Amino acid sequence: MLVLALPGGAALATSLAGRLHCDHAELQLHHFPDGETGVRIDAPVQGRCVLLAGSLDQPDGKTLPLIFAADAARELGARQVGLVAPYLPYMRQDKRFKPGEAVTSRSYARLLSASLDFLVTVDPHLHRIHSLDEIYTLRTQVVPAAPVIARWLRSHVDAPWLIGPDRESEQWVAEVAGLVGAPWTVLAKTRRGDRDVGVRLVSSERWPRHTPVLIDDIISTGHTMLAATRLLERAGLGAPLCIGVHALFDAEAHRQLLEAGAVRVLTCDTIAHASNAIRMAPLLARAVRQMSADSKEVKP
Amino acid sequence: MLVLALPGGAALATSLAGRLHCDHAELQLHHFPDGETGVRIDAPVQGRCVLLAGSLDQPDGKTLPLIFAADAARELGARQVGLVAPYLPYMRQDKRFKPGEAVTSRSYARLLSASLDFLVTVDPHLHRIHSLDEIYTLRTQVVPAAPVIARWLRSHVDAPWLIGPDRESEQWVAEVAGLVGAPWTVLAKTRRGDRDVGVRLVSSERWPRHTPVLIDDIISTGHTMLAATRLLERAGLGAPLCIGVHALFDAEAHRQLLEAGAVRVLTCDTIAHASNAIRMAPLLARAVRQMSADSKEVKP
Repeated sequence: MLVLALPGGAALATSLAGRLHCDHAELQLHHFPDGETGVRIDAPVQGRCVLLAGSLDQPDGKTLPLIFAADAARELGARQVGLVAPYLPYMRQDKRFKPGEAVTSRSYARLLSASLDFLVTVDPHLHRIHSLDEIYTLRTQVVPAAPVIARWLRSHVDAPWLIGPDRESEQWVAEVAGLVGAPWTVLAKTRRGDRDVGVRLVSSERWPRHTPVLIDDIISTGHTMLAATRLLERAGLGAPLCIGVHALFDAEAHRQLLEAGAVRVLTCDTIAHASNAIRMAPLLARAVRQMSADSKEVKP
Repeated sequence: MLVLALPGGAALATSLAGRLHCDHAELQLHHFPDGETGVRIDAPVQGRCVLLAGSLDQPDGKTLPLIFAADAARELGARQVGLVAPYLPYMRQDKRFKPGEAVTSRSYARLLSASLDFLVTVDPHLHRIHSLDEIYTLRTQVVPAAPVIARWLRSHVDAPWLIGPDRESEQWVAEVAGLVGAPWTVLAKTRRGDRDVGVRLVSSERWPRHTPVLIDDIISTGHTMLAATRLLERAGLGAPLCIGVHALFDAEAHRQLLEAGAVRVLTCDTIAHASNAIRMAPLLARAVRQMSADSKEVKP
């Protein structure tokens, strides 16, 4: 096997290669003056399973190079070509919210499926789509973050009260709470725009001696987490610990969360970020080992 | 038919729609805070031929939206989906120059072919690939710029001497020269890097009473044209007129060419640029009419 780091994926590739006892290299990118991108695989791939590794946050600049690299690996004789993308983008536009909108989840799935043999990711944002197999036609394996987050909570927080900032987060919150054996609830969210959200409590349940722990799958602008943190403060429910699986938010949003009273903001390392505290590489490596062994066949 | 302007393609879409006597609209783009792009078609497409129109220079940011729009049009019931891309990118990496390189021409052709029914473009950079059909599996029509350039020269330059700055330009130069009935030659180019080229004369042929006219298909960094302009000046062959089909060069390169002695720099309007002087819309509209009539069937 050869692990090939996509842009920004060097640390992940090194970590995976160490656990999989295989070579790793960085995909060589060249930006031509006319705005085109050239890619080069600087390692032998003939007969090997080639694993492209890197998070696909900010996906528009990363997707063509990824597809070019996958095609090149296959042309150069790779036995199979897989992708470890700890963060899988384009999962949120999963229906036509307004007439005429593209359902980009479906198009993006088609693009990746046409270029790769398998995909390993951490908790994709499944909402109206209930399984990656509904839109992805390649083999997929989802590594759940809940068990790792639950393990972190067990060893760091005595009595957590898990709170999801909206209905969509219920799946993660309920699962982590079940694993930790903690009470949980979700808030009700109203979204008025990309950066304009409101949240409110929907039950009178209180756990005054517990530490409130806000959990969401994606912290993007940070506005949902921020609204939830402020709500808990206002309601006298205490300063929360904020946990996200995927850290799409920037340093400014991070600072605002801490200023609003969050005790700490922490995330899984699916996207490189100052808040990363929970490592996913061990589970990703295990999933890759399984996927690459599942099929030795080259796609026609 | 509905002409849908891709980013930067509004003028082309308006012009095509006027000639094709049909509706036009702009593809609505939304950039989400997480770097994803949403697209929306703000016009009815059911049962219509949808024509996406816009040059694909600086292609990496334009390609996902294009694919999303094509998929959406098809899902929304478009009878067929075509693309008018006066400049077709990713034609220059047409072989593996170094081991391990991706042949992006092939990958890009596969991507567009999987999303569209037909493609109309102006003079793609065909070098080692001799016809789009070698890599594109959709229906294609190439509009040649040579006849329009020849017509411009006949009405603007009394006695042109056509000069191609390198061997690759021979195909355009010889064709235009044939149409104009003018003498022609090509220079020999040595490329030492993206922005480092040298050219030299390879014949003693001289046409002292003619106006030298440098012609190339793409003016990219402008360095090839610049080297050729300086060579003609040094050799006492006169100040050239510089003609390019596709204007990928920036304002700085434009200024340098004029400073180096070019009488004028002019291009076809396949990419919006201050040097545009030759309009391609009439021929593009004619090609579209032909392509959209060729097949009334929806791709399976």
